[in-house]
Amino acid sequence: MRMVDLIEKKRDGEALSKAEIQFIINSYVLGDIPDYQMSAWAMAIYFRGMSLKETAELTLAMAQSGEQLDLSTLGGRFVDKHSTGGVGDKTTLLLGPMVAACGVPVAKMSGRGLGHTGGTIDKLSAVPGFRVELSQEEFVAQVKKIGLSVIAQTGNLVPADKLLYALRDVTATVSSIPLIASSVMSKKIAAGAQGIVLDVKYGSGAFMKTVEEARMLAKTMVSIGNTLGRQTIAVLSNMNQPLGRAVGNSLEILEVADALQGKGPEDLMEVSIELGAWMLVAGDAVPNVGAGKVCLRQSIKSGTAWNKFLSFLTEQGGDAQAVVERRLQVAPWNLPILAQETGYVQLFDAHKIGVLAMALGAGRVTKTSPIDLGTGVILTRKAGEWVEAGEPILQLYGSNKEMLEEGIKLAQNLVTVGSDAPELPPLIEEVIQ
Amino acid sequence: MRMVDLIEKKRDGEALSKAEIQFIINSYVLGDIPDYQMSAWAMAIYFRGMSLKETAELTLAMAQSGEQLDLSTLGGRFVDKHSTGGVGDKTTLLLGPMVAACGVPVAKMSGRGLGHTGGTIDKLSAVPGFRVELSQEEFVAQVKKIGLSVIAQTGNLVPADKLLYALRDVTATVSSIPLIASSVMSKKIAAGAQGIVLDVKYGSGAFMKTVEEARMLAKTMVSIGNTLGRQTIAVLSNMNQPLGRAVGNSLEILEVADALQGKGPEDLMEVSIELGAWMLVAGDAVPNVGAGKVCLRQSIKSGTAWNKFLSFLTEQGGDAQAVVERRLQVAPWNLPILAQETGYVQLFDAHKIGVLAMALGAGRVTKTSPIDLGTGVILTRKAGEWVEAGEPILQLYGSNKEMLEEGIKLAQNLVTVGSDAPELPPLIEEVIQ
Repeated sequence: MRMVDLIEKKRDGEALSKAEIQFIINSYVLGDIPDYQMSAWAMAIYFRGMSLKETAELTLAMAQSGEQLDLSTLGGRFVDKHSTGGVGDKTTLLLGPMVAACGVPVAKMSGRGLGHTGGTIDKLSAVPGFRVELSQEEFVAQVKKIGLSVIAQTGNLVPADKLLYALRDVTATVSSIPLIASSVMSKKIAAGAQGIVLDVKYGSGAFMKTVEEARMLAKTMVSIGNTLGRQTIAVLSNMNQPLGRAVGNSLEILEVADALQGKGPEDLMEVSIELGAWMLVAGDAVPNVGAGKVCLRQSIKSGTAWNKFLSFLTEQGGDAQAVVERRLQVAPWNLPILAQETGYVQLFDAHKIGVLAMALGAGRVTKTSPIDLGTGVILTRKAGEWVEAGEPILQLYGSNKEMLEEGIKLAQNLVTVGSDAPELPPLIEEVIQ
Repeated sequence: MRMVDLIEKKRDGEALSKAEIQFIINSYVLGDIPDYQMSAWAMAIYFRGMSLKETAELTLAMAQSGEQLDLSTLGGRFVDKHSTGGVGDKTTLLLGPMVAACGVPVAKMSGRGLGHTGGTIDKLSAVPGFRVELSQEEFVAQVKKIGLSVIAQTGNLVPADKLLYALRDVTATVSSIPLIASSVMSKKIAAGAQGIVLDVKYGSGAFMKTVEEARMLAKTMVSIGNTLGRQTIAVLSNMNQPLGRAVGNSLEILEVADALQGKGPEDLMEVSIELGAWMLVAGDAVPNVGAGKVCLRQSIKSGTAWNKFLSFLTEQGGDAQAVVERRLQVAPWNLPILAQETGYVQLFDAHKIGVLAMALGAGRVTKTSPIDLGTGVILTRKAGEWVEAGEPILQLYGSNKEMLEEGIKLAQNLVTVGSDAPELPPLIEEVIQ
């Protein structure tokens, strides 16, 4: 088999066989296929796509390219969750304790944020003392003990994806549905998931700008999961404005603490309960999604989810009491942005809120940039809410005076006020399974 | 400027600016852009194409990526010729002496063959003693003295094309019209051509299989040349059967010798005279192509072209007398393939004749493979000619017994005989200027 022939085959729109895909992935990881052939192949896939069968085979070849976790010792079905990412997305931290409280173990490996704001692991780092890196034994032991652990991705999981993603990033081949889908799903499968719940976001603050693209990606991932014998459910959710009111690492942990104590913003609760309920379904803990939602709401009301969160923080070395007492690091350079007029807050661009949060210090410019965990934005008002002229719409938290001033500039005219309430799209668009 | 953004721009179908194209080519030659970005870019061009303006700018950036020849000391307009390659294409060796005999100097740098049979330089190597490598001074001095020199490409001419071509070869991005056109034209422009005559072949034995593809390539190259201030003329010619009767290096030199003495096959003469006449037009030696043809035919009749060829061989150290006396190395392992039936020889596949010649030893398997100059095929009968059962159709010349036997196998059913004369397409399809 020669790689040049396989590039040509894909370039001409033909499907690659399972053996051909395995040859490509295995040879690439071994260093026998050079980057310049892989990038040409990735660009051919960008233009020609891949069949669902090919995409599933690519996923499996990638999942098998390195170590694979065996979580069968946890007992029962192990369900994983993944979000395609959005601004202010803290659902993992909220639904993790709720789902665990309803009896389905949550053992999650998560990435650091590469977008405008931190990832789940960055958010957890805002809790003093919290250890994001556990050994595999510690990880499994904790899930057995309290039903919940979230750690940073470690070890030699899916080396093919690490190599290919880095290459795609510099060759304009990231935004290809089969390549995105196989990248996400290969990691879930290598991490041992038996059930997978996907939060596929669309809108200005999401990677997929339109619902059609998001639906296509969701269907592709669900098809891969089902083809490979993993029950997979995708929830299409809107990300035209950030989820909840907090954007930024410490600020989001405090919002999660509120939410687990019954004071969460409506949209954040709706998405988290929808996703969590499907995890309970996939974990065989409830007969249907309605029963799942009842259990999750009850876990908030009864305090079991909140207690689960605190013991999760404590188990991983975090200072849970600091969260209870809201003693997390928050930037002293902060300032409100005030409404110029009275009226309804109009729909605004979640992506621009992300850019703003990043400018304030909450995100990474490059892979190795530091994050200032105490910075970010609070949306005092969200789209559709009423505001009087002179009342705050946003509250900015900047790393220093200069970054706060830069943030103030970016925040001008970002949120507008009008006399009519804007029409908001449904938060949950569709469930694909 | 970041290469990833320029790949994305091309991937999305936008045109690159002159500055962007220069940045890409210059940075690539300097090693500042890695192969894996160039190959992704080339694949994006494969799918999205380039405008004529972009293609001309790419050509110029490549031509300027290394040394450039200045042939202005030759006096008058220097006209170069290029063929996109075919089986049995020995037109350069035939029209060179004719054009020089009509007063337009021919200073040609030529490549070694990468296809099924040798290139012009390989053919010349079949003349004992012939030097294919001259210094630039020797080259220019010889053209000044006798009006004709043909040498192997040397020096640091168009390094961008050398790098990019090698990369395209292994990433399935060869067959892209803007990339082919800029590769060809950048070399002609760096070699100092003021006029360029292109032989663009189509058909089974050519790189372009259809006349439409060939026309598109021809139009692109003519547009590039004219945009860059070089008078450019393209002749579209058919390559469904080999040109002339000889395929293989020594065999083709002997056919050229025959042709220069007035005994050339009709098709070879027609194409060579058409191309040569356009070179005379581009070189301002004749008022129109008709006058050019008259001069070229006269150069054969009078013997001036044949004498020019012999002095050309002698000047470059070749044993002209060996050509006169037909003492070139020809393989002793030879055998005729006989017609099974009586009738008209049907149209056959020039590509398969190329494959046969290669199997007999006349072509290179890899860049560094040796060629057996004495091997090849003589088409005793060409398509449309009458043959009696038992008469020879082909004569094979193999490197050794095994290769001859392999050739006999490949030659079976390659040429068929039928009761009706086949319909032959016109040899010259169109002239584009």
